[in-house]
Amino acid sequence: MSAKKVVKGLAADAGIEINGTQPWDIQVHDREMYDRVLKQGSLGLGESYMDGQWDCDDLETAIAMLVTSAAERRIIRDPRLVLRLAGFYLGQVVPNRGARRRAYTIGKHHYDIGNDLYRRMLDRRMIYSCGYWADAGTLDEAQEAKLDLICRKLELREGMRVLDIGCGWGGFLKYATERYGVTGLGVTVSQEQVEHAQEELAGLPVEVRLADYRDVTGTFDRILSIGMFEHVGYKNYPVYMQTVHDRLADDGLTLVHTIGCNAPIKSRDRWIARYIFPNSKLPALTQIDEAARDHFALEDLHNFGPDYTLTLRAWHQNFTAAWPELSASYDERFRRMWVYFLLSSAAAFRVRKTQLWQFVFSKYRPGVYRSIR
Amino acid sequence: MSAKKVVKGLAADAGIEINGTQPWDIQVHDREMYDRVLKQGSLGLGESYMDGQWDCDDLETAIAMLVTSAAERRIIRDPRLVLRLAGFYLGQVVPNRGARRRAYTIGKHHYDIGNDLYRRMLDRRMIYSCGYWADAGTLDEAQEAKLDLICRKLELREGMRVLDIGCGWGGFLKYATERYGVTGLGVTVSQEQVEHAQEELAGLPVEVRLADYRDVTGTFDRILSIGMFEHVGYKNYPVYMQTVHDRLADDGLTLVHTIGCNAPIKSRDRWIARYIFPNSKLPALTQIDEAARDHFALEDLHNFGPDYTLTLRAWHQNFTAAWPELSASYDERFRRMWVYFLLSSAAAFRVRKTQLWQFVFSKYRPGVYRSIR
Repeated sequence: MSAKKVVKGLAADAGIEINGTQPWDIQVHDREMYDRVLKQGSLGLGESYMDGQWDCDDLETAIAMLVTSAAERRIIRDPRLVLRLAGFYLGQVVPNRGARRRAYTIGKHHYDIGNDLYRRMLDRRMIYSCGYWADAGTLDEAQEAKLDLICRKLELREGMRVLDIGCGWGGFLKYATERYGVTGLGVTVSQEQVEHAQEELAGLPVEVRLADYRDVTGTFDRILSIGMFEHVGYKNYPVYMQTVHDRLADDGLTLVHTIGCNAPIKSRDRWIARYIFPNSKLPALTQIDEAARDHFALEDLHNFGPDYTLTLRAWHQNFTAAWPELSASYDERFRRMWVYFLLSSAAAFRVRKTQLWQFVFSKYRPGVYRSIR
Repeated sequence: MSAKKVVKGLAADAGIEINGTQPWDIQVHDREMYDRVLKQGSLGLGESYMDGQWDCDDLETAIAMLVTSAAERRIIRDPRLVLRLAGFYLGQVVPNRGARRRAYTIGKHHYDIGNDLYRRMLDRRMIYSCGYWADAGTLDEAQEAKLDLICRKLELREGMRVLDIGCGWGGFLKYATERYGVTGLGVTVSQEQVEHAQEELAGLPVEVRLADYRDVTGTFDRILSIGMFEHVGYKNYPVYMQTVHDRLADDGLTLVHTIGCNAPIKSRDRWIARYIFPNSKLPALTQIDEAARDHFALEDLHNFGPDYTLTLRAWHQNFTAAWPELSASYDERFRRMWVYFLLSSAAAFRVRKTQLWQFVFSKYRPGVYRSIR
């Protein structure tokens, strides 16, 4: 069977017609695409898109349909294709992705791409994580709602000392100090983020440092991380939880805002690993529970994964609108890579392949925790 | 070292003085108590209490202090005592406690004790599970708040068909049909509950059957269990989840309201196993997740464990107030057993050894689930 025939069959199983007329149909411009998909799975699909070998009017829907039909799994069950694809699936080892010496790689690779890109794509506070769309109509509103939700979940009160692990461009700390009167410390592994955050937070009782969270000392009333746990690596979850435990006051609360996947995964999406997040791994609930339960009572777990689809669509819209100016700094292949990243991620949340979790933990604090929404 | 000396030492470690003057101090009436505690751990402690060998003004606090100091764990670490206690800890096998043939045992043993006891102890709706005390001042209010919380979490709408697994005396179904206009089916393994529930629900579009949940057929828009999952047994969690999945509409929601423990347990409290719940086992989060994730997205997890302390205290108060009449049907040893059950359970929730969880699951339904509190 030719590669073209196989790929066409897999697409058809998902309801997608190659060169069809529906918005989610895939338009193939270069037949090499078929070979790359067959040989390299999701990596080949993404790379051939970056290279302009195919297009799709509604890329998010197409990926959603492909994920839903679990095309990859069915390929591997087809005995005619197992040998051919063996090289793709075998030999994937799992390095200690969040090890201290690697921690700064993610900062350099992803977050130092350029503040200009993020400034154009994100909301006005530059919050690079899922917004909360329960009562929001715009990205700005969704991000502010998310920040406020976290402040309320953490029961922030004036004078509390807060540690923000992976503080990004300082958006949360700015909001929390201005609105809730807390003080605090933010750490990030991206030099560009530190510089921007220090500017943003000038005059506020907050410090921002280029530091690994494991190097922080002192005690905090509240500790949180927003969109950072994805980079910890499951072998380091116990270290993360131990560190937070050691830094947290006995009556404290800690919140983890993270993308999650439905079951522990042994290998990652190779396209995402190569182009977007080199040292990242999505946690499963069991992995978080196993690392946390010796130290913490899980007081609350909130899943609003489909809100990430809305967030990613808003980012895609902003990115596309800003492209005329951004194109001075980035080439066409980068544009296609970024669009593919945003829309395939939107698809994964849409079909519930990935979740967005907010956990609240206490140190088995006596008395009830009144969770809020 | 004498048994008395060891037990006194363990109590002292927990802050309790034998024959001391604080309300949480233990008054020993019969020295045999020391031997029984040492030889049989929690079983000996409970049995010697039932036999009147010791008393305590504030039994809940005393148990809370003992649990907190983790007395049992420290005994086993003391090499002088390991051999002596080996018989207590070894050789505990885990039978399939929720197997179909055993399912009716829990009904006969616990829930058929007599409706009169439960009528006097529980709220006016006879809800035998944790109330929701966020805005409640009385047991009646806390139970009604819990029922309404579940209805709202399940997004009940008029005409929906609801399955209540372990429906008790019909309290939830009565509330849900009257207030939310649903129809439904309740199953329980207690004949006394069926009779009471059928009376209670006469004229409403609800059926109640003496049946194992695995024997239910048909499809339901919503499925729930309140205080029933504790009796399923962890080997049957996959069967429970599979059964609910098969009976649930594709766009349906299912809620599990259950006591949970902080980590998977291999052996159970022997006193509780012998006197209160013979075939029951508390789930850990990981065990529920592992059984559920192939079928369901976890949309929401709400922990209000400390509310069970308030619920159990209210039950204890009602039970004690009703004792003059109840004593016609129950003897003193039963009274002491029941008090020990209620107050030691209250202690376990107070010190966060046990949790109260409400899970909401969907079949990986597209679109966000807006959780509420």
